[in-house]
Amino acid sequence: MINVGIVGATGYAGEELVDTLLRHPDVRITNISAKIDRSLSISDIFPKFKGRIGLICTQPDIKEIAGICDLVFLALPHTVSMDIVPKLLEAGKKVIDLSADYRLKDTKIYEKFYNTKHKDKLHLAEAVYGLPEIYRAKIKDARLIANPGCYPTVSILAFAPLVALNLVDSDSIIIDAKSGVTGAGRKIAEGFLFSEINEDFKAYKVDVHQHSPEINQELSKLAGKKISVTFVPHLLPLNRGILATIYVRKKVRGKGASSKLISLYKKFYKKEPFIRIRDEGDFPTIKDVVRTNFCDIGIKESVDSIIIIATIDNLLKGAAGQAVQNMNIMYKFPEYTALL
Amino acid sequence: MINVGIVGATGYAGEELVDTLLRHPDVRITNISAKIDRSLSISDIFPKFKGRIGLICTQPDIKEIAGICDLVFLALPHTVSMDIVPKLLEAGKKVIDLSADYRLKDTKIYEKFYNTKHKDKLHLAEAVYGLPEIYRAKIKDARLIANPGCYPTVSILAFAPLVALNLVDSDSIIIDAKSGVTGAGRKIAEGFLFSEINEDFKAYKVDVHQHSPEINQELSKLAGKKISVTFVPHLLPLNRGILATIYVRKKVRGKGASSKLISLYKKFYKKEPFIRIRDEGDFPTIKDVVRTNFCDIGIKESVDSIIIIATIDNLLKGAAGQAVQNMNIMYKFPEYTALL
Amino acid sequence: MINVGIVGATGYAGEELVDTLLRHPDVRITNISAKIDRSLSISDIFPKFKGRIGLICTQPDIKEIAGICDLVFLALPHTVSMDIVPKLLEAGKKVIDLSADYRLKDTKIYEKFYNTKHKDKLHLAEAVYGLPEIYRAKIKDARLIANPGCYPTVSILAFAPLVALNLVDSDSIIIDAKSGVTGAGRKIAEGFLFSEINEDFKAYKVDVHQHSPEINQELSKLAGKKISVTFVPHLLPLNRGILATIYVRKKVRGKGASSKLISLYKKFYKKEPFIRIRDEGDFPTIKDVVRTNFCDIGIKESVDSIIIIATIDNLLKGAAGQAVQNMNIMYKFPEYTALL
Amino acid sequence: MINVGIVGATGYAGEELVDTLLRHPDVRITNISAKIDRSLSISDIFPKFKGRIGLICTQPDIKEIAGICDLVFLALPHTVSMDIVPKLLEAGKKVIDLSADYRLKDTKIYEKFYNTKHKDKLHLAEAVYGLPEIYRAKIKDARLIANPGCYPTVSILAFAPLVALNLVDSDSIIIDAKSGVTGAGRKIAEGFLFSEINEDFKAYKVDVHQHSPEINQELSKLAGKKISVTFVPHLLPLNRGILATIYVRKKVRGKGASSKLISLYKKFYKKEPFIRIRDEGDFPTIKDVVRTNFCDIGIKESVDSIIIIATIDNLLKGAAGQAVQNMNIMYKFPEYTALL
Repeated sequence: MINVGIVGATGYAGEELVDTLLRHPDVRITNISAKIDRSLSISDIFPKFKGRIGLICTQPDIKEIAGICDLVFLALPHTVSMDIVPKLLEAGKKVIDLSADYRLKDTKIYEKFYNTKHKDKLHLAEAVYGLPEIYRAKIKDARLIANPGCYPTVSILAFAPLVALNLVDSDSIIIDAKSGVTGAGRKIAEGFLFSEINEDFKAYKVDVHQHSPEINQELSKLAGKKISVTFVPHLLPLNRGILATIYVRKKVRGKGASSKLISLYKKFYKKEPFIRIRDEGDFPTIKDVVRTNFCDIGIKESVDSIIIIATIDNLLKGAAGQAVQNMNIMYKFPEYTALL
Repeated sequence: MINVGIVGATGYAGEELVDTLLRHPDVRITNISAKIDRSLSISDIFPKFKGRIGLICTQPDIKEIAGICDLVFLALPHTVSMDIVPKLLEAGKKVIDLSADYRLKDTKIYEKFYNTKHKDKLHLAEAVYGLPEIYRAKIKDARLIANPGCYPTVSILAFAPLVALNLVDSDSIIIDAKSGVTGAGRKIAEGFLFSEINEDFKAYKVDVHQHSPEINQELSKLAGKKISVTFVPHLLPLNRGILATIYVRKKVRGKGASSKLISLYKKFYKKEPFIRIRDEGDFPTIKDVVRTNFCDIGIKESVDSIIIIATIDNLLKGAAGQAVQNMNIMYKFPEYTALL
Repeated sequence: MINVGIVGATGYAGEELVDTLLRHPDVRITNISAKIDRSLSISDIFPKFKGRIGLICTQPDIKEIAGICDLVFLALPHTVSMDIVPKLLEAGKKVIDLSADYRLKDTKIYEKFYNTKHKDKLHLAEAVYGLPEIYRAKIKDARLIANPGCYPTVSILAFAPLVALNLVDSDSIIIDAKSGVTGAGRKIAEGFLFSEINEDFKAYKVDVHQHSPEINQELSKLAGKKISVTFVPHLLPLNRGILATIYVRKKVRGKGASSKLISLYKKFYKKEPFIRIRDEGDFPTIKDVVRTNFCDIGIKESVDSIIIIATIDNLLKGAAGQAVQNMNIMYKFPEYTALL
Repeated sequence: MINVGIVGATGYAGEELVDTLLRHPDVRITNISAKIDRSLSISDIFPKFKGRIGLICTQPDIKEIAGICDLVFLALPHTVSMDIVPKLLEAGKKVIDLSADYRLKDTKIYEKFYNTKHKDKLHLAEAVYGLPEIYRAKIKDARLIANPGCYPTVSILAFAPLVALNLVDSDSIIIDAKSGVTGAGRKIAEGFLFSEINEDFKAYKVDVHQHSPEINQELSKLAGKKISVTFVPHLLPLNRGILATIYVRKKVRGKGASSKLISLYKKFYKKEPFIRIRDEGDFPTIKDVVRTNFCDIGIKESVDSIIIIATIDNLLKGAAGQAVQNMNIMYKFPEYTALL
């Protein structure tokens, strides 16, 4: 049994962490905090938790948190985490950070995309990118996890086998991604009002989204050479879920068989508890993965290109679920605990 | 051809006024204003208007507005209108005010429900409550129209024949109303974010909504005695439309015939261009009236009570459409112009 | 550990039973069946179950089911269950029937509302109405549970304390109920197409819904006299959840205190794991209960009437969740197992 | 003033034709028909039309239609139109066919994608593809218009300038399209139920949709060489609207300027009443065009590729609106009549 704290519990990912961890038999939530005007029972903030948890959500007090937690989840806005992480690590705590602060190894790129100086290069170096399907071995011993972004999670998982097996023209990758609204966090702005989004659909940050460099970093590492994807995210009028449609040219033109590629994918991921490769002609939908930690992948090969369709729940495999999966690995709990 | 101005054009009702008036053959929009940081083409604010109108939306300048408009629509938040109305009337302009500032004749009640002093009792006295089905004769000659609230419009229209004909126990009126989200205006608050409202439904301001006294005032006037309704509004996860389900006890218990009541309603409203009474067993839905200026009403009588179901589009018959209907009456344009 | 079967697994309630029971530590699903053209893996029917269950869904074979199940859930359309129940009971199995076939004790009323002869009066007599908050003692020893309808569950729970304590004029009960679309089952008809329901809202079966007699039967039993409610259901454009707004006259007019009533409710339900009474001025929304087995209740008293607002998830507390709660009681599992 | 008939009035496009033509000052709807069990007032079928039109919708009777109409709109399922068109043309009527029957000039391709023999090659030859921006001159004198599909309309309009100006590698066109649910017609099937589509999103007919050959035919004609696009359609959980994101490689790699391309687009379409080219950095959303006949286009150029985002309302510019635009051209009515 471990004691965990959640900092930033009032956002969507934080809410999901509470929900997931309450179902975890080996975890006790001992501290809940957020940027909040006055202390309030977490079940007054989210009435759905009434009768399930009695904790009070307060302003974060790092000393107090360090005193009663073994592991701390940070579900904070970008640039806030790096103020807190050093203190928690120095206090001997383990940290899973859901923000972008420890994901990009190149601080120049971080500073360009997040418009702020990086303040903790020391720990950036040791942070492990928490994508278990790629970095499970390192996650086991990590004390600081940079939990991946939602778009990078689905994009990298969908594309990793092709890159690793060197099957495609890595100069031609197009990722057309569509996300539910919780992907943006609980952001109070006109553009996120119900009547603005309902019955609408749009592209945003066309080819300039801050998740592009994260995808590029990881795919480049896998490929052993620089990869730069074209990435266009879109906003779906629904709460949860991402579907990414990926297009890439084959290295060698010619009739290939989807079935052969599908076999390669199944082999690549055969021990993974949360990757499901679809059979030929079958493509995943958002509904198939929502409220689960699965990433589902469908593949189709044509004469000159490959189309991959992959889905995740942005709040679970794309955030809180993956964070809990990382925790399970770090503490040697069965990896799927609280996630099925 | 008349020249009109729209103050508050960036709200939902203002947007709808622009859309409706652009289709009106006898109207030229000559001024568009709103509380806005910097002047901006109205078609940059609402790209759907691109190619249809070139006007710039500026901060309201009453002198300028008075100089180029015959009639001004005020689509402003409550309490703001009463600062502007006196100036426009003094400049000899006609005004249709979509706020609540000139609806409640009793300023004590206004001050209780809107939490502010009433600053223009002078013009309050002359303001005509702009419900054409009840006050058409007065509207013809009015220079200040208090355009009714959305809930009062549907509630009064649904209930007026029973009250006028003295058929029910007026102590027992229950109005269970459900409204789309635009009813609250373009309000930037956490409670109106897409992910908060989507897939949710709730009651709000249970029996304390500020539209209750407006309904009570008008029904009491019709009945010739004090009526006090029980009014519970609910928030629907859709953009536009109100459906009100009304329950009332009959004066005399006993098997009545829905068909007889329906005939009375049809007779009561027989010359009305925007009231549609449904046949027995047929009840209106929100889809039947959305993007129209109609109010549809279905009626069912049981042994001891009557159930009435009525629908309108909150932005049209409940706001901008009714405002244009009032303008048509004031200027002797055919009443349905730009509304069919 | 018990072995259970699910007949009718392809409907919404059946799907939810599979999902819930897969998380139950004391239950093994050993048979899944439905009216289906050809046998198919349940995870091909619902891809979200891939990796979680390998069972094949077949046409129901009662002999086979009886051979490998201790308890059978019937998630079948009304009138189909009563063909199957006798055979299962004769084979010594326990049955939880989610249809209406064993709910109404008066077969004349059943036959009027469901348009068919009742074929199993023998077992109708012994069936226990599976509302644990009222009938827990009988459920413990039952072999046939008539699992309550969704509207009756929320209506009876919201109203039981007032009836049991004899506080209201039982002639004046109005239930204005609003349900998500899954309440109608997976019915393939024009009226349930996405584009018909999305952005619409409507009343249906106005005061003639088949759940009225079920509500009347149970409230009358509690009151010790005949109660006949006015019940108007409405269809919400969302997937799951019911909110009922209930209006009733007080016996004695006069300023009462909501807080006093709220205390009575809290006392009435104080040992119930799935009833949550809200504090004064706080009313439940659908989001608070969706994907939970809770029933949340808010109460407001005015001079002459009481307003109660209650919510459940129609597929859980209104169907599959309540069925599992009943199973937990029957087998002495902790009542909340798999439901939190 | 011309007399028109609408065959297939009960589908989404038919409903939209009625709505649009009722607002057309030069048109009288004289016949409304559909595959229907019994004759029914069109305003009983669509209560929103009550008070606006009194016509009865009957089974189509070609003789009767020909007797009272100058022009007939066919809003029928594919393969049904070609039975009717010859009879109407022989009777001297003009026809605008919204189905696919007269769009594909190569009947082999038609027969492959629509699984049926083509029965009217005679008139196929003379049918004019009704995309005014490309074929306005021919439309003027046509008696048979093949009204374009919704996906082809937005795809061709978005891409025509690049093809016509020979600026891109036409082997690398990827069209990732997302459509609202009415795009599929009023199809009664499990997959189109509200609860199946709401909160879901999916790709369908991945790279095998029947609109691919239509897009290929028209782009090839424009390019003067064979073009074969990669086309993946997706289903959005909303009623109306299409957004297509198009990716294409530039012929010559190198920093280009979006602004230059945008100028070319604006010049190409400068006389078009329904094409709106967005300024740099501005991309259209579905809300900008829904319930209008506009096609909005945004363009972004990167080092090696061009991204184009285009939106239309699938029921208007993608069906009924474009049909009325074609009629306006054929009869020399101002092209935007009833469409603004």
